Amino acid sequence: MQLDHATPEQLRQWESELTAEYKTIVAQNLSLDLTRGKPSPEQLSLSDALDGILKGNYQAEDGTDSRNYGGLDGLPEGKRLGADIMGVDPDSILVGGNSSLTLMFQTMLTAHHFGLTGPESAWKHSGTVKFICPVPGYDRHYTVCEQLGIDMVTVPMLDDGPDMDAVEELIKQDPSIRGLWCVPKYSNPTGVVYSDETVERIAALGKIAHGTFRVFWDNAYAVHDLTDTAPALSSIAEACARLGTEDSVVQFASTSKITHAGAGVAFVSASPANLKGLKAFLSTCTIGPDKINQIRHARFLPNQQALHTHMRKHAQLLQPRFEAVLQALESEFKGTDLGTWETPIGGYFVSFDTRPNCARETVRLAAEAGVKLTPAGATFPYGKDPQDRNIRIAPSVPSVAEVVSAMKVFVVCVKLASVRTKLA
Amino acid sequence: MQLDHATPEQLRQWESELTAEYKTIVAQNLSLDLTRGKPSPEQLSLSDALDGILKGNYQAEDGTDSRNYGGLDGLPEGKRLGADIMGVDPDSILVGGNSSLTLMFQTMLTAHHFGLTGPESAWKHSGTVKFICPVPGYDRHYTVCEQLGIDMVTVPMLDDGPDMDAVEELIKQDPSIRGLWCVPKYSNPTGVVYSDETVERIAALGKIAHGTFRVFWDNAYAVHDLTDTAPALSSIAEACARLGTEDSVVQFASTSKITHAGAGVAFVSASPANLKGLKAFLSTCTIGPDKINQIRHARFLPNQQALHTHMRKHAQLLQPRFEAVLQALESEFKGTDLGTWETPIGGYFVSFDTRPNCARETVRLAAEAGVKLTPAGATFPYGKDPQDRNIRIAPSVPSVAEVVSAMKVFVVCVKLASVRTKLA
Repeated sequence: MQLDHATPEQLRQWESELTAEYKTIVAQNLSLDLTRGKPSPEQLSLSDALDGILKGNYQAEDGTDSRNYGGLDGLPEGKRLGADIMGVDPDSILVGGNSSLTLMFQTMLTAHHFGLTGPESAWKHSGTVKFICPVPGYDRHYTVCEQLGIDMVTVPMLDDGPDMDAVEELIKQDPSIRGLWCVPKYSNPTGVVYSDETVERIAALGKIAHGTFRVFWDNAYAVHDLTDTAPALSSIAEACARLGTEDSVVQFASTSKITHAGAGVAFVSASPANLKGLKAFLSTCTIGPDKINQIRHARFLPNQQALHTHMRKHAQLLQPRFEAVLQALESEFKGTDLGTWETPIGGYFVSFDTRPNCARETVRLAAEAGVKLTPAGATFPYGKDPQDRNIRIAPSVPSVAEVVSAMKVFVVCVKLASVRTKLA
Repeated sequence: MQLDHATPEQLRQWESELTAEYKTIVAQNLSLDLTRGKPSPEQLSLSDALDGILKGNYQAEDGTDSRNYGGLDGLPEGKRLGADIMGVDPDSILVGGNSSLTLMFQTMLTAHHFGLTGPESAWKHSGTVKFICPVPGYDRHYTVCEQLGIDMVTVPMLDDGPDMDAVEELIKQDPSIRGLWCVPKYSNPTGVVYSDETVERIAALGKIAHGTFRVFWDNAYAVHDLTDTAPALSSIAEACARLGTEDSVVQFASTSKITHAGAGVAFVSASPANLKGLKAFLSTCTIGPDKINQIRHARFLPNQQALHTHMRKHAQLLQPRFEAVLQALESEFKGTDLGTWETPIGGYFVSFDTRPNCARETVRLAAEAGVKLTPAGATFPYGKDPQDRNIRIAPSVPSVAEVVSAMKVFVVCVKLASVRTKLA
């Protein structure tokens, strides 16, 4: 199918055929869901040994009684687990509660209102504050900015990371830029891994940006490879150390998509100056993180080998689901002008770009045919995809057979929306 | 000992005798600690059955898979546990993470910056914002206010709760008052239980205060009785319902001093309007609380009878320690003019008021003699006890024998500081 070279007659014939096909699908009363970027019950069960793992031994490696108050920055074994996941120095780690989103919010709140490096460093003193958001991206990042009154400016996400020419240009031109959101590995939703050059250029932003500029490096899928030959993400901590920009990047990760999604352990990795500022804030609003859960996780995943073995089990469950999505896209859209996509080998999403002005209609058609998709626009700040093209597909929760069924509906909806838009 | 009726000669003789006694104590090289308001290891062990209690069953009563994301306001059994502890309707409960301090901070942050009942209700729009703090009180409450730039004004804590004449007067006179901190049962540190009349008057504040005024009702010791004949705290929720002031009070509690202090479950109880505002905020900064820990706790403490039985075990460990403190105070200071104290029958503290200008010196003398006490002033906003009188004694962690030894030192230090101050 090549819409741009089709005659009006051909388009009308396609429209008629696709409408008939779509009606057949609607009549099947399907109920399928490709919206949820969360682990399936089978994945969660991989970690059910967590409860009971302590066998009465609540003592941390350093002798701390994990049951009592305190330990604002985490136990040694909790830090080591974070370091194993993120590929950083354990000393750079602060262990949080069950949500890295909370740590990101707290870090941004601290930077904006209270100052990461003293009260005078608070962004709010500078009037308008802006963050750079590569698009498409993660809606929860946008919500954090919105909640704190931080404006968002977008740059395109390319197949090797954010468009760094655009990022550098924005920073040079606009003195109100204070940060950049990044999901560097298996980016949400496009699934790309930032190239070595991109990582290097991001680490170098601290040289041209405002002194309080911070890259929020949300390494949510650091060890979430679908294949054994996973691409390595270059170390931004090492690049920053080399360039002397250690304070310009704050890294985040969690075990949410490693063990139990809602009951995991979250981590920050940052420079001593940033950790000091974050700890000063945290000391006012928590009695310390859940240290028992840190020990549970550290005993369940005691080293990198155990972590790797565990993540291979996730991959075995996820990989066929991704394959079902990608096979459908390739068999139906390869060589057409109906859409483009990346082929992620990790993470939780496949991102599909329709022809302009077709995403919303595709999602609407799919919903009417019983296939729930993430609302079009959700991957853009303020929910506004200016070209109305991007759709995020999340195949982790349904069964492989359900993903296959859902994708059959999806491709028909894409085609029908495309043809109708072309005819309109 | 009655210093105010003593002759200078008598005072000098006492000073000489006490100095000798003090020197003997210093020579013993003691190392005792009465600073820590946290459970002892023996108390923590009462809840060690929590780990492993799930036996592979991670499903909540309503069918929710507790392992996955979501559930911003908590599982049904989590809410019921909170309601059992706080004596409120489960529907009024939101379940948080491991720290009620965090929920208090988040509630105050929301009220101040984002508005609990819509953006226009944010306190920050009103310029100066003030909170009323009964003194002596809890230093962590003061820190929350300080962090958010909220000014604190004090009222005296009486033996039936805050001086309500002073509270009402402040609210009527100062339009910038936006809230009141309360620890209504076994108040930190004086240990008093608010009288029925005080609770009623606090519930009525919503009628005379600004529309966004909120009482922060930190019911940290709701079920933490030392005796079987515990005084009942009147229900502020019922009083508010009767008076139509439901929005003016937000209640907090946690299992921190019920199960494992650092790994418990925290609760808010509030009106639908307040819950809505708090949930709107929380949805921007968390993927939801740890629901597995909610189930663990709900299965460990399935009903009020189980909770009561469990708390009796804590009381058996705590009661002898409190008795050791109170016996020392009574045998040495009853009928003297050296100090006053309450006799708490619950909570974690005994609060002792020295003669004016003697607290700091008492704490210093005790430290030199190897007995650590909470810094004088810590129970007042900004660390400033204007009369330098209040000392918080926390006997839960040391053994009974250690509490007895520490109190022997304490009474000598009080006497010596008092006599020297009188002589000065």
